[in-house]
Amino acid sequence: MQKTVEIALDDVSKLAFNILTHAGYGSAHAQSIAQMLYTCQLDDCQSHGLFRLLMCIETIRAGKIDGHIAPSISQAGKAIIKADARGGMSLLAMEQAVPLLVEKTREFGIAAVAVNHCFHFSALWPEVERLSAEGLAAMTMVPSHSWVAPAGGTRGTLGTNPMAFSWPRQGRDPFTFDFATSAFARGEIELYKRAGKPLPDGVAIDKDGNPTNDPDAALAGAMLTFGGYKGSALSVMIELLAGPLIDDMTSLESMEFAQGKSGAPYHGQILLAFDLEQFSGGQLARNEARAERLFADIIDQGARLPSQRRFAARARNLKRGFVEISSGLYDDLCALLP
Amino acid sequence: MQKTVEIALDDVSKLAFNILTHAGYGSAHAQSIAQMLYTCQLDDCQSHGLFRLLMCIETIRAGKIDGHIAPSISQAGKAIIKADARGGMSLLAMEQAVPLLVEKTREFGIAAVAVNHCFHFSALWPEVERLSAEGLAAMTMVPSHSWVAPAGGTRGTLGTNPMAFSWPRQGRDPFTFDFATSAFARGEIELYKRAGKPLPDGVAIDKDGNPTNDPDAALAGAMLTFGGYKGSALSVMIELLAGPLIDDMTSLESMEFAQGKSGAPYHGQILLAFDLEQFSGGQLARNEARAERLFADIIDQGARLPSQRRFAARARNLKRGFVEISSGLYDDLCALLP
Repeated sequence: MQKTVEIALDDVSKLAFNILTHAGYGSAHAQSIAQMLYTCQLDDCQSHGLFRLLMCIETIRAGKIDGHIAPSISQAGKAIIKADARGGMSLLAMEQAVPLLVEKTREFGIAAVAVNHCFHFSALWPEVERLSAEGLAAMTMVPSHSWVAPAGGTRGTLGTNPMAFSWPRQGRDPFTFDFATSAFARGEIELYKRAGKPLPDGVAIDKDGNPTNDPDAALAGAMLTFGGYKGSALSVMIELLAGPLIDDMTSLESMEFAQGKSGAPYHGQILLAFDLEQFSGGQLARNEARAERLFADIIDQGARLPSQRRFAARARNLKRGFVEISSGLYDDLCALLP
Repeated sequence: MQKTVEIALDDVSKLAFNILTHAGYGSAHAQSIAQMLYTCQLDDCQSHGLFRLLMCIETIRAGKIDGHIAPSISQAGKAIIKADARGGMSLLAMEQAVPLLVEKTREFGIAAVAVNHCFHFSALWPEVERLSAEGLAAMTMVPSHSWVAPAGGTRGTLGTNPMAFSWPRQGRDPFTFDFATSAFARGEIELYKRAGKPLPDGVAIDKDGNPTNDPDAALAGAMLTFGGYKGSALSVMIELLAGPLIDDMTSLESMEFAQGKSGAPYHGQILLAFDLEQFSGGQLARNEARAERLFADIIDQGARLPSQRRFAARARNLKRGFVEISSGLYDDLCALLP
């Protein structure tokens, strides 16, 4: 079993904040990043928790991101908020735009935030769950780097293009999902490589466009989308809505922009919010009951709603007052402290 | 080879209109349905063209639909239009709401139509393509009947829950997709049954929740979603956005409402529209170029954009001035004429 280190909840964001500010992030950015990492780590989301500090540090060391820049929030339409990150990390821009998004959604019934010119490394579910915590439904999408081939294709064009959605539930954890439209996450292929295991079928192609089960050949080739031509179509939609729609880069452009350097990709993000009160014509209670019956019918047959493992981890970690990370990661993080 | 009958383009909607009015639909509904069937038939979309007249007739004969009712169009929020079909077919309500949706989208940047209390039988792509023809991007979703099991489940809870999206392209056919979130359409399973062929893996489960390749067992059991747990999560999102969000039925409720009768399902529909001009901050040309580069990169590697077969059929049929349907269907339709 892997050795782990316990970190008290209060210390998670302090640790992240200290590492981030020491590496050159200003305190506003460091705070918003630390808050995101805490939120993910609290839910035992190891891939997007404190582990991502490594990518945040790599990104600022690569010299492209501005760790101090103040986002600029403006309106691009009555129900559209532009959150220009101006070359900084996405999170502070989103954080500053969300209160206005809530206001506009309550005013118009539906509204959107377009985050532009941002570096992006984070899970999407914390952002849609901030809106479902306000009683709104929310959907968000981002491109990434062009590692993923379209259905029937031979090379990377699309990003891993995740999409997240959250729906508020009275007195319960929301219905939330957050998934990449690639069949596998890039990191999963790395894990197969490290473990010396062959990939399952349908996950990747080699550099000549042929199906492969070899992690190395996959990393030199391209990943495939989940769900064949349907997942591929959905991924193209995400490129369009979180790219050209909002005057920002596709995954192809973002990959070029990076010029082979590692670190967080640079692109845009779209976030849509829906006011249940207005859409339902004021019939909230009746429709909450409808949604709850749907959820109950899923659970009753032994299926699971998405995110349940995460919610269980959250409850457990809140109760015991600490999270666990691998001691390897802990050592790497300590080396980044002043 | 199947025998076919040629029908002149001008005669397609006349034939449909005559059959519909003879069966009891008022002329406003008959016109909107005939227009939809023409649009689908023109693109050789056989499953949603004139063939669907049979379902329209079955629906009115079942005595549930009102063939004469006038939809009621109102606003549920500044950017939300309620199109109450009042127990009629969805199409007339949507047709009457779309001009207002275009107006509201241009005013607010993003807007939505909620169609309520409608019977629904049609393909979704013609509705999103009406908006992309206006230069807007559009997304629509509907529930259906609870024939589809959630990931990890043993029985039907979700509908086939299709989703369609269209993105306008200058001087070209739009980027459009329209797919069911079930792995197979219900009709496809019927086709396997008739052909005596086993279903592929991953398409259906039997009434005890076990995987099956037997079409009969599948029809008595449940279908599966495309793309495993991701497709399943997406399908639940569609239930929520096109059901409880808009004060309308889930697929479970719609199935109960039908009380085992065949014909078009009764539920709601959501349609979202996005103003490219406002979202892009007026940078339309630059972002059209971005989207075109993405499409070109997909095509250059030998992959296809969705809907290309349909667009090719449209061009051919417009040129030759007629469509072809099977002579079996033609005979069935003639029997429905006065």
